[in-house]
Amino acid sequence: MKVSVVRDILEANDRIARQNRELFTENGLFVINLMSSPGAGKTSLLEKTIDALHDDLRIGIIEGDIQSSQDAERIAKKGIPVVQINTGGACHLDGNMIRDTFEEFNFKEMDLLVVENVGNLVCPAEFRVGEDFKVMILSVTEGDDKPDKYPLMFHESKVLLINKIDLLPYVDCSVEKIRDDSLKINPDLTIFQVSCKTGEGLEGWYNWLKKEVEVREAGR
Amino acid sequence: MKVSVVRDILEANDRIARQNRELFTENGLFVINLMSSPGAGKTSLLEKTIDALHDDLRIGIIEGDIQSSQDAERIAKKGIPVVQINTGGACHLDGNMIRDTFEEFNFKEMDLLVVENVGNLVCPAEFRVGEDFKVMILSVTEGDDKPDKYPLMFHESKVLLINKIDLLPYVDCSVEKIRDDSLKINPDLTIFQVSCKTGEGLEGWYNWLKKEVEVREAGR
Repeated sequence: MKVSVVRDILEANDRIARQNRELFTENGLFVINLMSSPGAGKTSLLEKTIDALHDDLRIGIIEGDIQSSQDAERIAKKGIPVVQINTGGACHLDGNMIRDTFEEFNFKEMDLLVVENVGNLVCPAEFRVGEDFKVMILSVTEGDDKPDKYPLMFHESKVLLINKIDLLPYVDCSVEKIRDDSLKINPDLTIFQVSCKTGEGLEGWYNWLKKEVEVREAGR
Repeated sequence: MKVSVVRDILEANDRIARQNRELFTENGLFVINLMSSPGAGKTSLLEKTIDALHDDLRIGIIEGDIQSSQDAERIAKKGIPVVQINTGGACHLDGNMIRDTFEEFNFKEMDLLVVENVGNLVCPAEFRVGEDFKVMILSVTEGDDKPDKYPLMFHESKVLLINKIDLLPYVDCSVEKIRDDSLKINPDLTIFQVSCKTGEGLEGWYNWLKKEVEVREAGR
């Protein structure tokens, strides 16, 4: 009985996620669902990305946290539209929570919507919110055994950003092992090695985003 | 309806956790439920703790992971009893999973059982497994905003180990802010600042463990 309840919840969520997706597609909006462990650098990546691309792209952000509005406040300083969702205990965002933010945005005047999920390497991978792609961050401080131990998120993601490479001299972590093990799980994964602190390696990520937005604009 | 199903699951789990707890108490066994984000240093802490205390305490370990047995293999090298639980997708351990490991242990010949939970700063805090105390690790690389953003785990824990303090010169993290914000959520929290890499600060943690075990031995 427990299993069928879980399945019902996932199916109901998929239905809402599909409706969200249709609305995003109608508006030519590119949407990513950004996931990672707590503190891997999701909000820092968004701050850097907004600074680099706000002249080229009209960006909006949804911030998901169990509680607090610290992340939305950090983003709001950049002067772009942002909505904070507090899940009040729930360990991931779902389609319904995203739908509830729609009246706060004008999608016709946006190119890119980033949904920053709750910090959690497990549960967010199971729930669609209407995104084009899931994107994940893994920090080198978390260690190189994470693809083996949390395979679903690596499997579901289109892009993996390996972050905090400025700390590589001080931690026991092989980026090569992360790359190899991730690609075994998901051979189509696009991987960038970056430092959101120094900015190293972020150019490739910016170019990937711009290209994906252009594809959607062309189809609008 | 969803809410009542969730409540049923939590109540059923609490019942099993209480039964586990009774069995542990009968055997004078001290049991901790060790929780953190992925890669914060749970297994490294256990390796150090076993090296330091295996002459004084008879230790057993339960390793929880979604998949892989890497952690149990690391612990098995120390020559102490260890059982790996693979949750197969589930984001936390529960009382039932722990009960299923009992035939692998001889509790009469153990002083301390450590249950290493799935790496997740959210869900494990909601589920008892029969432990005396929950103990959590926060790595300084995760940032000092974590007590505000993930309060339940800080609220439920008896001990907070602030790990990877050897990396403090290279990250933007205030240990003082972590301490202050954690104690606001949970004034009874015992806090140790440690590096599982260099061993700094671990003496206090070892002494705390030995003292708690002594209390249970006295009541046996």
